[in-house]
Amino acid sequence: MTDLKILGEKAVQAKYALASLSETQKNQALLCAARALLENSGRILAENEKDMDAGQKNGMPKSLLDRLSLNVSRIEAMAEGLRQIAALPDPVGEILETFTRPNGLVIRKQRVPIGVIGIIYESRPNVTADAFGLCFKAGNAVILKGGSDAIHSNLAIEAVLRDALISCGITPDAISLIKDSDRSVTREFMRMNGYVDLLIPRGGAGLIRTVVENATVPVIETGTGNCHIFVDESADPDMAVNIILNAKTQRIGVCNACESLVIHSKVRQKLLPALKKALDEKNVQVRADERIREVIGGCQPATQEDYATEYLDYILSMKTVDSLEEAIAHINRYNTGHSDAILTNDRENAERFLAGVDAACVYVNASTRFTDGFEFGFGAEIGISTQKLHARGPMGLRELTSYKYTIRGNGQIRE
Amino acid sequence: MTDLKILGEKAVQAKYALASLSETQKNQALLCAARALLENSGRILAENEKDMDAGQKNGMPKSLLDRLSLNVSRIEAMAEGLRQIAALPDPVGEILETFTRPNGLVIRKQRVPIGVIGIIYESRPNVTADAFGLCFKAGNAVILKGGSDAIHSNLAIEAVLRDALISCGITPDAISLIKDSDRSVTREFMRMNGYVDLLIPRGGAGLIRTVVENATVPVIETGTGNCHIFVDESADPDMAVNIILNAKTQRIGVCNACESLVIHSKVRQKLLPALKKALDEKNVQVRADERIREVIGGCQPATQEDYATEYLDYILSMKTVDSLEEAIAHINRYNTGHSDAILTNDRENAERFLAGVDAACVYVNASTRFTDGFEFGFGAEIGISTQKLHARGPMGLRELTSYKYTIRGNGQIRE
Repeated sequence: MTDLKILGEKAVQAKYALASLSETQKNQALLCAARALLENSGRILAENEKDMDAGQKNGMPKSLLDRLSLNVSRIEAMAEGLRQIAALPDPVGEILETFTRPNGLVIRKQRVPIGVIGIIYESRPNVTADAFGLCFKAGNAVILKGGSDAIHSNLAIEAVLRDALISCGITPDAISLIKDSDRSVTREFMRMNGYVDLLIPRGGAGLIRTVVENATVPVIETGTGNCHIFVDESADPDMAVNIILNAKTQRIGVCNACESLVIHSKVRQKLLPALKKALDEKNVQVRADERIREVIGGCQPATQEDYATEYLDYILSMKTVDSLEEAIAHINRYNTGHSDAILTNDRENAERFLAGVDAACVYVNASTRFTDGFEFGFGAEIGISTQKLHARGPMGLRELTSYKYTIRGNGQIRE
Repeated sequence: MTDLKILGEKAVQAKYALASLSETQKNQALLCAARALLENSGRILAENEKDMDAGQKNGMPKSLLDRLSLNVSRIEAMAEGLRQIAALPDPVGEILETFTRPNGLVIRKQRVPIGVIGIIYESRPNVTADAFGLCFKAGNAVILKGGSDAIHSNLAIEAVLRDALISCGITPDAISLIKDSDRSVTREFMRMNGYVDLLIPRGGAGLIRTVVENATVPVIETGTGNCHIFVDESADPDMAVNIILNAKTQRIGVCNACESLVIHSKVRQKLLPALKKALDEKNVQVRADERIREVIGGCQPATQEDYATEYLDYILSMKTVDSLEEAIAHINRYNTGHSDAILTNDRENAERFLAGVDAACVYVNASTRFTDGFEFGFGAEIGISTQKLHARGPMGLRELTSYKYTIRGNGQIRE
């Protein structure tokens, strides 16, 4: 069984080395790692084949097999991801503030890496390269715990990346992968205070809950998105149908997809018939309260549980409200702090919604699907934070850093 | 027994109300609360008397009795603290960034309150007013769990503050105090996900460890400070004695006091005799390695445990190193990420130390005692963070905020 203490100690040593790498050194290593992935694609695909065979034998559902599967173009995408990260600016060393105190102390607040970042994720093996790339560029060592279904693929990718680092004269312990699928090892991983500075779970609600429940190291909750769209009285019905369709169906299984619609009672007649038709064409099932079902037929009643559910499926809950305040209160009660939108032509209502809704990303007249590191222009992301500590919303390179204060004196003592 | 769910629900409702208060409203409430503390000092002192009597009966040590005790001047200091917080700028609403995406979305990153902050603290009843003031000014509701020793004092202060809020037309649930001393209640408090956005333990290492072990809500570790001073080869011996004395003895029981000295072997002869004499005068006991004991007599050998100990007492551990690198490695191994200093006249060594030491605050030629919200010019602080997530070092008003993204569009959907 993996000795996590030894692995953790190596990561701690690596973090000190990585913190002082120059931007050029990091970029060269990322480009070298990208080339290595391509050069070793045969080896990676052969190992991925083993995972796929095991998955098929174990009756893994087709959608999961698709996530697990690698091919040349997916490996090319992984390599391209590393090249894109190399092209992003290095956040480490940025001076955030400098101030001089009356006693002459010069205090500087400076961006530094977080240190050792642990990542627990599910089947997709491309996360192995992505997470390494982002953590590495921000000067962090990463310890990965992937799904056991993808273990052969992940080990192959880890080995290629470690070799690439060695060839650039950089410690391979910048990335390490926990091989065991034993639950007790995962549990120990969540409690490596003194070794792991931050743990990021990437996966479904169950995984995230398990990590939050069991971890003693700092955790960033990511991803669960019970995202709402509120259609205000003054909303443009055509724009509303267009945005709702996009937010619900453009990609169904993602955290920024819309799961629940909140509709001002006065807009029901104008909106619902056209919306229902459009949703029917996409085979979206509607679960709605009675006042909505008075206007459109063929949908089930919505329960409280529906309003609390992130379906990740062709299902949409709907709720009628009589005011903006009621909409905000409903959303704050059921959302997961991810992304919520108002569709309105009333400027004041837009501002009240932006101020009142408690979520990482609050939209006016746009699809919730834009909550994403690439769409925000961060270049890449490690996940979407739905908690309020440290970082909120899409987490790019800057969000993978901390800061330190350096204080320069000439003999100052405290009176 | 307190129903924490009800108390939590009230705090959640309060946080929505507090988030939209203006700076003026908050300042008026703080000044009103300050006046109320003074006007009700008789009542508060009478309740404090009950805690003092119980403490004396239970054989509470004198130092703790002193921390527990209130008098008119301490209540005046609490009121002055609230007035000072009123005078600080309001961090809420600050626009941190605005950027426009190629598709026309205008994304704004804006400072918002964290929401509901839980604070677990030990005997000092003044924390009740201080913590309320800081959390309130940053737009947060606060749920307090003080030590059972101070329960009468805390309840009196809470009641005065709640009444003051009511008189200003502000929800009194901006502050609530958990009355039970039952451990199961404290444990439940640490697991109020969905109600409490952040938990800050204020107290000794034992309290902090308990919270880190048991909490499922996000925690900021504060306070434990095994702070080091490294005396480099080129250090000025007079400045070194002056700074070391200050950092060790100016106030003995605080987290930014120096606990361990790391000395370059080449500076031992120049430094140690004068330093030992000065430490003797302050009755500081020295625990040192052999190479130091060769130079100065009358001190015990230092163990590994000594190097890892935050004494909070008139004891100082000492360790000899032969290089800057060895000093940095030793400090990174034993420090708690709080405050460490180098004393040197070598500019390059100073920079290498600042870059290499992994701590919230790293000093050159100054006492570690400056790690403090007031000394940093933050005006006040809720604690010193020793973790890397969210905030590091002294945590003032800004560190009690999060941010949200607001995104303004005109119909954008994701292609």
